[in-house]
Amino acid sequence: MSLSLEQRCVHTIRTLSMDAVQKANSGHPGMPMGMADVAYVLWTEFLNHNPSNPSWFNRDRFILSAGHGSMLLYSLLHLTGYELSLDELKNFRQWNSLTPGHPEVGLTPGVETTTGPLGQGFANGVGMALAEAHLAARYNTQDFQPVNHYTYAIVSDGDLMEGISQEAASMAGHLQLGKLIYFYDDNKITIDGSTDLAFTENVQKRFEAYGWHCIPIDGHDREAIRNATREAQITADKPSLILCRSHIGYGSPNKQDSASSHGSPLGDEEIAATKKGYGLDPAKTFHIDDDVLDHYRKAKEAGDHTEQEWNSTFTEYKTAYPQLASELEDRISRKLPESWDDILPVFETDAKGMATRKASGKVLDEITKHIPAMLGGSADLSGSNLTKAQSASILQPGAYSGTYIHYGVREHAMGAAMNGMALHGGVIPFGGTFLVFSDYCRPAIRLAALSHVPSIFVFTHDSIGLGEDGPTHQPVEHLAALRAMVNVMVLRPADANETAWAWRAAIENKKGPTCLVLTRHNLPTIDRSKYASAEGTLKGAYVLNPDEKKPEAVIMATGSEVEIAIEAQELLKKEGIPTRVVSMPSFELFEKQDASYKQQVLPDSITNRVAVEAAVPFGWEHYTGSRERVVGMRSFGASAPYETLYKEFGITAEAVAQKVKAGR
Amino acid sequence: MSLSLEQRCVHTIRTLSMDAVQKANSGHPGMPMGMADVAYVLWTEFLNHNPSNPSWFNRDRFILSAGHGSMLLYSLLHLTGYELSLDELKNFRQWNSLTPGHPEVGLTPGVETTTGPLGQGFANGVGMALAEAHLAARYNTQDFQPVNHYTYAIVSDGDLMEGISQEAASMAGHLQLGKLIYFYDDNKITIDGSTDLAFTENVQKRFEAYGWHCIPIDGHDREAIRNATREAQITADKPSLILCRSHIGYGSPNKQDSASSHGSPLGDEEIAATKKGYGLDPAKTFHIDDDVLDHYRKAKEAGDHTEQEWNSTFTEYKTAYPQLASELEDRISRKLPESWDDILPVFETDAKGMATRKASGKVLDEITKHIPAMLGGSADLSGSNLTKAQSASILQPGAYSGTYIHYGVREHAMGAAMNGMALHGGVIPFGGTFLVFSDYCRPAIRLAALSHVPSIFVFTHDSIGLGEDGPTHQPVEHLAALRAMVNVMVLRPADANETAWAWRAAIENKKGPTCLVLTRHNLPTIDRSKYASAEGTLKGAYVLNPDEKKPEAVIMATGSEVEIAIEAQELLKKEGIPTRVVSMPSFELFEKQDASYKQQVLPDSITNRVAVEAAVPFGWEHYTGSRERVVGMRSFGASAPYETLYKEFGITAEAVAQKVKAGR
Repeated sequence: MSLSLEQRCVHTIRTLSMDAVQKANSGHPGMPMGMADVAYVLWTEFLNHNPSNPSWFNRDRFILSAGHGSMLLYSLLHLTGYELSLDELKNFRQWNSLTPGHPEVGLTPGVETTTGPLGQGFANGVGMALAEAHLAARYNTQDFQPVNHYTYAIVSDGDLMEGISQEAASMAGHLQLGKLIYFYDDNKITIDGSTDLAFTENVQKRFEAYGWHCIPIDGHDREAIRNATREAQITADKPSLILCRSHIGYGSPNKQDSASSHGSPLGDEEIAATKKGYGLDPAKTFHIDDDVLDHYRKAKEAGDHTEQEWNSTFTEYKTAYPQLASELEDRISRKLPESWDDILPVFETDAKGMATRKASGKVLDEITKHIPAMLGGSADLSGSNLTKAQSASILQPGAYSGTYIHYGVREHAMGAAMNGMALHGGVIPFGGTFLVFSDYCRPAIRLAALSHVPSIFVFTHDSIGLGEDGPTHQPVEHLAALRAMVNVMVLRPADANETAWAWRAAIENKKGPTCLVLTRHNLPTIDRSKYASAEGTLKGAYVLNPDEKKPEAVIMATGSEVEIAIEAQELLKKEGIPTRVVSMPSFELFEKQDASYKQQVLPDSITNRVAVEAAVPFGWEHYTGSRERVVGMRSFGASAPYETLYKEFGITAEAVAQKVKAGR
Repeated sequence: MSLSLEQRCVHTIRTLSMDAVQKANSGHPGMPMGMADVAYVLWTEFLNHNPSNPSWFNRDRFILSAGHGSMLLYSLLHLTGYELSLDELKNFRQWNSLTPGHPEVGLTPGVETTTGPLGQGFANGVGMALAEAHLAARYNTQDFQPVNHYTYAIVSDGDLMEGISQEAASMAGHLQLGKLIYFYDDNKITIDGSTDLAFTENVQKRFEAYGWHCIPIDGHDREAIRNATREAQITADKPSLILCRSHIGYGSPNKQDSASSHGSPLGDEEIAATKKGYGLDPAKTFHIDDDVLDHYRKAKEAGDHTEQEWNSTFTEYKTAYPQLASELEDRISRKLPESWDDILPVFETDAKGMATRKASGKVLDEITKHIPAMLGGSADLSGSNLTKAQSASILQPGAYSGTYIHYGVREHAMGAAMNGMALHGGVIPFGGTFLVFSDYCRPAIRLAALSHVPSIFVFTHDSIGLGEDGPTHQPVEHLAALRAMVNVMVLRPADANETAWAWRAAIENKKGPTCLVLTRHNLPTIDRSKYASAEGTLKGAYVLNPDEKKPEAVIMATGSEVEIAIEAQELLKKEGIPTRVVSMPSFELFEKQDASYKQQVLPDSITNRVAVEAAVPFGWEHYTGSRERVVGMRSFGASAPYETLYKEFGITAEAVAQKVKAGR
């Protein structure tokens, strides 16, 4: 009996996946084999995309949250005509290929987000759907819908077990994101074996509790997949979970429904037997029937057509609504308004000053007025993080045009949703929590860094300076831990004006996440007629007192400890010891400066270097040469008023001065 | 109308909490006021504890997962007669008090675990209940139940929103932990305002989906609280969630049911009005009626009595089951068998060698035979982490005596559950995942460190050496991030024998968490007749080739890169450049050595120092003086076979030799 074109199309995903994993001798064949039916139906009959232009703005987003099944996605991308050759599939998981072990956005055309660490893709999709809903509310009109797409994902048992997905699912249900449609690969198998070993909850009931629309189906019944997808599409006020009972390693005579097909090649013999079982020629590898390729490649023509239609409608929209259209275009291309930075507030010298979180709030009041793409939020610490600008209204179901998101106590989902929003485009997401809780969203920060996603994290309450809440809430190692991460820009401004410049740096950083690290307590606004301009913030480190021409020591500090450094410098001056104070809000920006600037700020000739920061010294040795030259924290903090803590933990001007003298 | 004793007992919790927060001018009065009825009923009528001996082993565990409501717990501890004076309550949140902002275990008698970071206490409790179930299955007999207690907690909206609690809830439901009873403070208020802003899911339905028994009640109806607690106690095969509809800031005329009572003092005037509303004298602060105190203090006598009863039964048990009793006693006191470390395997020199994860598995095969308290697991990576010892059986409902836990893909809940188990006592928990996913459980590692909890984390796949899975799975910054954390012992052994010693160090570390960082790929088992003994592992760093008396440079390395360091040393030797190789499995252990040992290993006189580690150099500068002296990673990894990656990223013996020569 000859196989139908449709059946061969589905099997081709399976055979490409088996073959590529086998050739690499590494990878995960079982999941692509199990979800091939779903993928086929979704990608050939529903997904609105243009393989010739993976960045067409109104495309449906598709996320493979179960990123280990990457060959499913690579197969689809090749088959539907993205710029991903069959040779790339043959080069799966090899150096310099476009087909790494797990999908990486920015590397492979058509990959929407980097997945693999479980749960992240699930939460990214929630961010994408939210960005879509927000932009639609802002820019669609009665007669035009320039923003109108679905966000799809394939999610696995592992995704659903992770806390991040549970946070994101609750958030998506609350927000009634009706255009979010997830296919759950309910294959009953995890790496360790049967899901019964650890995962026996009622998934459908749980998602219904979150406010999702659930549709359980046979994941190999393509008619059921079609019907369920249609039902999900018309369910406008709830996200949908299509629970697809599937068979991992589908068709493998000895490995179907077994963990052994999850994360290892099936082996040549088993592959041959599987192909034979499918009714295919076991001798052929990486084979695609011509009519199968033709069928999949229809996506190109259809995609071109759809995009052209969208373009011509957009032209009409532009005529009808020139201002809306132009603003949307700017947002899509992340173009900032001309001279947007002129509007950054300048803060007057003030001995009492203000907390940098407060300065940040004031800066945001201005920025958000001039950059409509700014989309803020907080993980239930709005009044503490001060991320809600004066002009912001709350984003809620029915009010998606709001520009402030109550993420709830869900730091991890917040971070990953922000990543999803930034990847979606059209919005510049920023979100707040306490610095100590950067740990709760650290995997999302890492993926932003790896994927060059410009999410902006506002981390307030940045040291023992938060006082009475105590050591559970006082970060000491978090600055080091964030600085250790590649491609994360950490900025810890010393006063209100550095905070304004830090925000500028954050918004101009389009290649990765930025962490703004801000105090709870007041800091004096530094007298810039006496000290150097806060513009030095953009260089990561700068000399505050360049008039001191013959310093015999350098005192480096960040954030709230710059005040202490200045005080120490004055103490030492009285004793006839001239010192230089370097404000160092960002290691990463400083490291990007040329050697000459670095020498200018930290000349090799000045070997007496002391740093002060209310955090562990780890990593400062790069500038001080030794851990002992840092006035910082050697332990966790404690619960007490902050002035007491600074004194008791010895983070004082006297201690700094003492270290400078000891280093003479 | 005069108030009943019971009503005054309940109000006393409220007034103490209000007064302490007001005096500290900092803290969270609303939650203690809202949950006072529940707390009163639970602590006076159900909780089986002995205030005179907070470490009585068979006590019920009580966790305030919503740790910000710490004054609730401090009030209860003082009232029921723990060693916590009224002066300590008056000293709430002050330097050196026993009443820090959030409860800290080890500091305050009667506090079972450190809480505040939301969701952690929830997951700790699951670990405690699991430890109880496990020990009961192991040591209880038909006639004796030496281990037989409940684990209670009060949990908040914030706790339930966090992903960690959702992982833990699913796990507890799967494990059918019937003696876990949680009171959900369903007060409809979070920091940002109404829970409706972000949290509109059906909590009861969600927990039922996890397999919990749910009982919704009016949280101020003490009879309902009694009945629900009884019902929960007799529900043997499901954990129970008692959903208590409560009123935050109960009785405050202007702040009840408002976020304004959550995180700030009510103010003197409002406190006076509230007390008046209760029918109490507004002029009195920190007041406790004599009969109220007497009533609460009955807990002491009752507790003494209960513990004595338990002791005498235990004596009978000891007679009847001497071996069981003696083993249990050893486990409770964390006493290790005599010369337990003699059983650590010694691995023969082997050029092919084995992965350190594999060595770890073999070590565990031995250790678990001799230390019955070892309770292992993995977050669905059993076959990768190799944490399942040969002799281990699976812990499941109905088979709680098993010694291996399938945690599912729930790294965060695993970490916090391990902390709960270690705090419960009687077990030595260890659990595995990939090093890159240490980020997923980082907040739990931090709390273990802060609370001196000896959880053992087995982190395998520790570098680009994992190969094809690619940068999403390749840690580069995680070693630095863990080393930056205070009181975490990180060990990255270089071969099989160092791995055995590393396990010994882990088990002997009773004061904090240990992270064992292990390779996926094979490493040669070093010839210890040629190089120094692996026992040097216990000192954190040791000279591998002490016979080289006049080294002109030191090459430091950890884990898989020690092989590269040795190779570089040989290359340089051929060129007539004598060098010393230092294996440095643990920065933290090395820093604990005396100055003389440190000088012996890394003499100041040798300034040509190079380090090699397949990770970011961050923090190595402490030993090398400069980041440039480290052969390591400057970027994220990539997907390819690991041999290719080491070459392409320049982590080679040649690169090390080159750096040594450049430093001459």
